[in-house]
Amino acid sequence: MKKLSALVLSIAAISWGTPAVAQFAKPEDAIKYRQAAFTVMGAHFGRVAGMAAGRIPFDAKAAADNAAIAESLSKLPWAAFGEGTDKGDTKAKPEIWTEQAKFKDAAEKMQAELSKLVAATKTGNLDAIKTAAGATGASCKACHDSFRSK
Amino acid sequence: MKKLSALVLSIAAISWGTPAVAQFAKPEDAIKYRQAAFTVMGAHFGRVAGMAAGRIPFDAKAAADNAAIAESLSKLPWAAFGEGTDKGDTKAKPEIWTEQAKFKDAAEKMQAELSKLVAATKTGNLDAIKTAAGATGASCKACHDSFRSK
Repeated sequence: MKKLSALVLSIAAISWGTPAVAQFAKPEDAIKYRQAAFTVMGAHFGRVAGMAAGRIPFDAKAAADNAAIAESLSKLPWAAFGEGTDKGDTKAKPEIWTEQAKFKDAAEKMQAELSKLVAATKTGNLDAIKTAAGATGASCKACHDSFRSK
Repeated sequence: MKKLSALVLSIAAISWGTPAVAQFAKPEDAIKYRQAAFTVMGAHFGRVAGMAAGRIPFDAKAAADNAAIAESLSKLPWAAFGEGTDKGDTKAKPEIWTEQAKFKDAAEKMQAELSKLVAATKTGNLDAIKTAAGATGASCKACHDSFRSK
């Protein structure tokens, strides 16, 4: 049982790490790419969060569109945290690579919260959107607190 | 007839320009966002182009996935070329704002070529993908030549 878990974890770690090696010519390309994906995702999530916070007038269609784009983008950055991308113009903490399972959990938690946010925006119910946007924001912060330098 | 055309053009220019004002708190946010969207789009298009050029082993599913992501991203940068985003950390040429209709055409041409590339990747036919990737790359270059500083 313990052996199996170790094997599953090591396969997860490999499939987690390999794409970046295969997909980016240089580590700095991977770093630039993942930062860009977070920037685009953050801009679109920020609009929904702004509506939830009352800073931006609520528009159900715009909320749904922006949440859907943020959710699409949320799947992208992770392949760019491959080996050798811990140095350079990055705030990524070493814990991303030394605690890969924890980082993966945090990344998946954020994606799951964004999926719930998409579902909430489809209802058009602002209270549901506020709840889901709050949980999504908390999942961003939790990951940043553990894995991103200030 | 001329009046109508002028009106249509001016409405197009307004709807082209307004979202950025509404969606970005500061011009530098819009600039960072549009650059990020191009970065992510370029990374994914680059993988399909790499397969087309024989630099990356051809994988039909990966080609289709990457083309689809690039196509999604291709819709995003344009709202971030609003008024006041011509200055700062940007290679955007003034012609983007002085020749808005031409810029919009170039932007739409690129999106149309990417849609054709998505269709080509769905066939799994490498020759079709090569043709469509070439046309997409040419549409990137045409827009860069006219509207992006070196």
